Amino acid sequence: MQTIRLSNNEYDFEAYSKSRRQLIEAKLSEYLAASHPDNLWQSMRYSVLSGGKKLRALLCLASAECIIGLDKDIEAFLLLSCAIEMVHAMSLIHDDLPALDNDDYRRGKPTNHKVYGEATALLAGDALLMLAIETIIEKTPSRIERQILLNIIGRFSQAIGATGMIGGQILDLSFTGKLEDIRNNKDKTTDSEAKTIEAIHKGKTGALIKFSVWSGALLAGANEQQLQLLEQFADKLGFAFQIADDLLDSTGNLATLGKTPGKDEAANKVTWVTVFGEKTAREKLQKLEKEGLAILNNDQLANNQIAPLSELLKYAIYRTN
Amino acid sequence: MQTIRLSNNEYDFEAYSKSRRQLIEAKLSEYLAASHPDNLWQSMRYSVLSGGKKLRALLCLASAECIIGLDKDIEAFLLLSCAIEMVHAMSLIHDDLPALDNDDYRRGKPTNHKVYGEATALLAGDALLMLAIETIIEKTPSRIERQILLNIIGRFSQAIGATGMIGGQILDLSFTGKLEDIRNNKDKTTDSEAKTIEAIHKGKTGALIKFSVWSGALLAGANEQQLQLLEQFADKLGFAFQIADDLLDSTGNLATLGKTPGKDEAANKVTWVTVFGEKTAREKLQKLEKEGLAILNNDQLANNQIAPLSELLKYAIYRTN
Repeated sequence: MQTIRLSNNEYDFEAYSKSRRQLIEAKLSEYLAASHPDNLWQSMRYSVLSGGKKLRALLCLASAECIIGLDKDIEAFLLLSCAIEMVHAMSLIHDDLPALDNDDYRRGKPTNHKVYGEATALLAGDALLMLAIETIIEKTPSRIERQILLNIIGRFSQAIGATGMIGGQILDLSFTGKLEDIRNNKDKTTDSEAKTIEAIHKGKTGALIKFSVWSGALLAGANEQQLQLLEQFADKLGFAFQIADDLLDSTGNLATLGKTPGKDEAANKVTWVTVFGEKTAREKLQKLEKEGLAILNNDQLANNQIAPLSELLKYAIYRTN
Repeated sequence: MQTIRLSNNEYDFEAYSKSRRQLIEAKLSEYLAASHPDNLWQSMRYSVLSGGKKLRALLCLASAECIIGLDKDIEAFLLLSCAIEMVHAMSLIHDDLPALDNDDYRRGKPTNHKVYGEATALLAGDALLMLAIETIIEKTPSRIERQILLNIIGRFSQAIGATGMIGGQILDLSFTGKLEDIRNNKDKTTDSEAKTIEAIHKGKTGALIKFSVWSGALLAGANEQQLQLLEQFADKLGFAFQIADDLLDSTGNLATLGKTPGKDEAANKVTWVTVFGEKTAREKLQKLEKEGLAILNNDQLANNQIAPLSELLKYAIYRTN
């Protein structure tokens, strides 16, 4: 197992994230080894192994390593982080389908249904959901307490399902096209608009990001106070990640983004950027960064390996794709 | 808990299946209580609570009751059977989408996407998958051994995923339109065609039916020999169910079927009926019935409550919708 032995002070995030991404991708490639039916597995591999930031997987590992330290065996966390990436890939495949966002490009390549057809793409998404659950059950070392494993799978299902990511996607869809209403509605306070946007984000991207941080820490043996703090941290990071995403949609281009920009405004999507504008969005990001870092510097966490998490927060905010 | 206390000899299948269906539907309604976002939950309820045979749930209960007897507490099996029905409903929702079978009617009502739109239907399917897993974890009594629960969830994921139901759907799609090739291909033996059809069916409908029978018996404490026999029985029943389905597609009408008939031939689907004809299909059904009943009459099972299972086998074959 490749590890990095550095104190928080002399910590190199580039090297850390690169080594972790390599481990994640190698494991994912192993879990998604070619199998029968060929075209289904090819379609699954296409979306899971197409590069990407692997932010959720990195968060899961960083959260675990925040608790156990940087030079430990990360096998158990690695497979959990891989399961999370399978689900993330599934959400992108389904989201890109013509019935939803109808996107042609993702990570600079044609979307899954453009390559494998809509039927296979849809079923590949379904299969990835199940493979994620199966992987956690089949691969988690037997030394992990069975009830903890069940807690993780239960919360995983909630984070993905109607009360989590999928619920957020539905909310997002139900507000799509209503941007002008919100902009023109003088009765609505800015506060209630902000709450609507936060509710959408909390589900759509927040739930899985929060699960990534929580599950890594739980499996690593974090105490209750640490878990609560890390969940609060994940809320800040998740919200910041989504606002940064919306900013990139507004200011980026296909070459750097790898997906079609300007779609939120064109689709009348309700986002922090389309409702409050870019300047307010950047201010909100600064606020979230400050709040997130403050949580990591709480006494309960400050003596742990918090550097990867704090760097991932900055990365979520300042990334260019 | 409503129960039926009858010996196998004086056993009333109508009363049995009616009482069990009511219990299943009441529980499903409880697990799918209206929640937020409204339209997502409505869409989920629409397909799960739209009547239907509830064959998989009945099989799970009957398999459990084959082991524990007919007058026992079936709470733990009931929730498992509900989770199976959620997944079955999900498979119908996704299957009916324009990207797959493009069906307008199901159980005599407009299909999910015709009522709620494609985006919501697709996401409702995803959400049902997760709700099924969540329900098993949240609702199973704590007296059930945790490792057994994990085994059940792991095998459930396999039965649904790329190696089970979804894999079968992909196989089905890949052979759709190739009916003429198979009919005209003189080099191919009848045997290899039969194997192709069996492989499709084993995944598409067989995997979830087999899981239903296996999981009910496992949770009920069946021994290894009983589990193996019940799995063999489920294979016969699953295959017979699908051939009966294909016969109904060929001979039924919208009023009795509740869905559009004649679609297999029109879509050039490879089924036992389209390849070998109705007569051979009926002969195959008789053979499967005989084999299935013989398994139940094995010494390891014959003294158990096998009547519900044997009646369900006949029902799977002789039903009219």
